[in-house]
Amino acid sequence: MIPELKRLLPKMQQCELFHFFSLEELVQLFNNITVEIDRIPKGKLYAQRGKPLESLMVLLEGELSADMLNIEGQVLKVENLKAPSPVAAGLLFASQNFLPVQLTALHPSTIVKIPKESLLFLAGQEPRILDKLLSDAGNKIHFLAEKLKFLQINTIEKKLCTYIWEQKNLQNSNTIELPYTIQTLSELFGIPRPSLSRSLGLLVDEGIITREGKEIKIVEIEKLFERCLLE
Amino acid sequence: MIPELKRLLPKMQQCELFHFFSLEELVQLFNNITVEIDRIPKGKLYAQRGKPLESLMVLLEGELSADMLNIEGQVLKVENLKAPSPVAAGLLFASQNFLPVQLTALHPSTIVKIPKESLLFLAGQEPRILDKLLSDAGNKIHFLAEKLKFLQINTIEKKLCTYIWEQKNLQNSNTIELPYTIQTLSELFGIPRPSLSRSLGLLVDEGIITREGKEIKIVEIEKLFERCLLE
Repeated sequence: MIPELKRLLPKMQQCELFHFFSLEELVQLFNNITVEIDRIPKGKLYAQRGKPLESLMVLLEGELSADMLNIEGQVLKVENLKAPSPVAAGLLFASQNFLPVQLTALHPSTIVKIPKESLLFLAGQEPRILDKLLSDAGNKIHFLAEKLKFLQINTIEKKLCTYIWEQKNLQNSNTIELPYTIQTLSELFGIPRPSLSRSLGLLVDEGIITREGKEIKIVEIEKLFERCLLE
Repeated sequence: MIPELKRLLPKMQQCELFHFFSLEELVQLFNNITVEIDRIPKGKLYAQRGKPLESLMVLLEGELSADMLNIEGQVLKVENLKAPSPVAAGLLFASQNFLPVQLTALHPSTIVKIPKESLLFLAGQEPRILDKLLSDAGNKIHFLAEKLKFLQINTIEKKLCTYIWEQKNLQNSNTIELPYTIQTLSELFGIPRPSLSRSLGLLVDEGIITREGKEIKIVEIEKLFERCLLE
């Protein structure tokens, strides 16, 4: 194994996909496959939108800006990706396996590229990698399908009340555990995080719910239901 | 192997997940795992929304109605599922692995349930199953992400022109192959299929594109671009 990859393996271990493994096991896993290492200087455009995805890109050092171009060529920020993090992993195995964003290094960055075939090989050898690849994809599908649903609800309050109502039914209890952080929940609803926090605060102030961290207790169930119906 | 499963294997073979295999190979694969077979009489509610998904349900005979309940308890049809077809496969490995719809038999139906662990076992044994599970999930992610994007475009014409424009860039040619059928494309845009056909026809009538089946040739590229910008 080249020393550079060996140096990076502890960072690879911090990725959820590989955190089950000891460093020794990782050395063994990566001895069986060939990877490429890309170093990207600060400010450099690393990959353009539409680039075919043939490898799992794992950002191990630095930070990337993921941007879209609108039809007039203006750059629209999608998100910043901080190491360690896989990039566009969900699309790697899609038939239309194109990078949906362009990637620019905000800081000097290092990406290890694991070819698709090598990843399939690893997943065949290691059920935990297989399970993680499938559960990551499943979670992404769930998130996007929910996001589509909540886009159709117009107000923040109604989104939030409907979400709490559905969790009540799924968790079969008037005290629910939010499955997401407020940050992720605001991405799900497609709204700014402070707006969601404010809306949650208002429901607490009105005595409809109480909240402790991720735990929400429904106090006034009929009022909650009314808010779900409000136009 | 019980005779009932043996009888169903030719239908299993028609599913994309298993169509790589000969019947003999399928007998061997299914001899190594335990499955359940459910028979559902016509009209019966088979599964309620929110049911935890512990197995891959493969509908091998009959037809199911997949419905949502809105918050007031009204039934909203999502789709009809015709055999042979897996059911909610993309969510099986999600952390929030709940059935997002309720399932009712429109005709007498048969479902074979392959436990999640057995499916992981098969995927570990057979790279083609693994690859198919991941590519199905990747395709679903791609479709949902695109759908979210096109929801933000207001008119059918603008959706369609933007789609053609993006495919031109991705396929790097003024003659593009639509990656989807008109039916699927209309689902992507969230519009009725006849409306999409009409809009396509208008672009042809105006001489902006020509179309032969799935092949679209851009004739008036500047006019196409203008339509992408139209408010």
